[in-house]
Amino acid sequence: MTRPKSQTAALMSSPEDIEAEFYEALQLADLERLMAVWADDDEVVCVHPGAGTRVIGAAAVRASFEAIFANGGVPVEPTQVHRVHSVGSAVHHLVEQLQIRTAEGAQTAWVLATNVYVKTAQGWRMVAHHASPGQLGEGPALPEPASTLH
Amino acid sequence: MTRPKSQTAALMSSPEDIEAEFYEALQLADLERLMAVWADDDEVVCVHPGAGTRVIGAAAVRASFEAIFANGGVPVEPTQVHRVHSVGSAVHHLVEQLQIRTAEGAQTAWVLATNVYVKTAQGWRMVAHHASPGQLGEGPALPEPASTLH
Repeated sequence: MTRPKSQTAALMSSPEDIEAEFYEALQLADLERLMAVWADDDEVVCVHPGAGTRVIGAAAVRASFEAIFANGGVPVEPTQVHRVHSVGSAVHHLVEQLQIRTAEGAQTAWVLATNVYVKTAQGWRMVAHHASPGQLGEGPALPEPASTLH
Repeated sequence: MTRPKSQTAALMSSPEDIEAEFYEALQLADLERLMAVWADDDEVVCVHPGAGTRVIGAAAVRASFEAIFANGGVPVEPTQVHRVHSVGSAVHHLVEQLQIRTAEGAQTAWVLATNVYVKTAQGWRMVAHHASPGQLGEGPALPEPASTLH
């Protein structure tokens, strides 16, 4: 269901509101609603999980989600949110639970996501979404110091 | 070279300063200097590239870098920084260039990193570092909409 932009904007009075909007828009493959979440800025950044590349700027972010939505909505549920709130900004870190199709059938995948929100003159907006694969099929991610690179 | 904390703090008057501190501390495996960059907060978050897990809270972040530094400094250079600055917060997105040893010899690896800084009473501090592997050996990451998950 696509809502008028004005109605959507009224729902963006906190980082929690805008985060809920983001995931609902993802689930519904609602591009307009999704892009209403993002700041209209040339420097916003999005990293899709496993892509190995980054997408910079609202126009490029829109194009990247348009391509994803060509396959329909994303069955994603945000879980285990950690928050660092300060004046005018909020960093949320969460574990996204995704249902994916694999050669072995449906599986649950875990994705680690950092979402950054900033309070603008228009209300709270997303300025960064960085997602990367979590451990597949092993349940929620747990702290672990091991790393290949750093 | 380890500097006194007071001297380090004086260098943290901007997001750029603190980012430079972060990467120098990584290169030098200087744990005290590295942790002086981070906010002393139970909710700060760090995702090391390829780990598939997240590390939450300053104490756990310290332990994770201590384990990494057991192998020495990290030969990392920050490049291609994009910035979203707002009142009291800054999001930097960059491509980290790493020299890594592989079975085929030394290679350059690219890591995508989102760094979030917040202005605290003590000056600018890092509250989030999310790093994930970029495309190996293919040069700087470029925008690309393709993605397996979303």
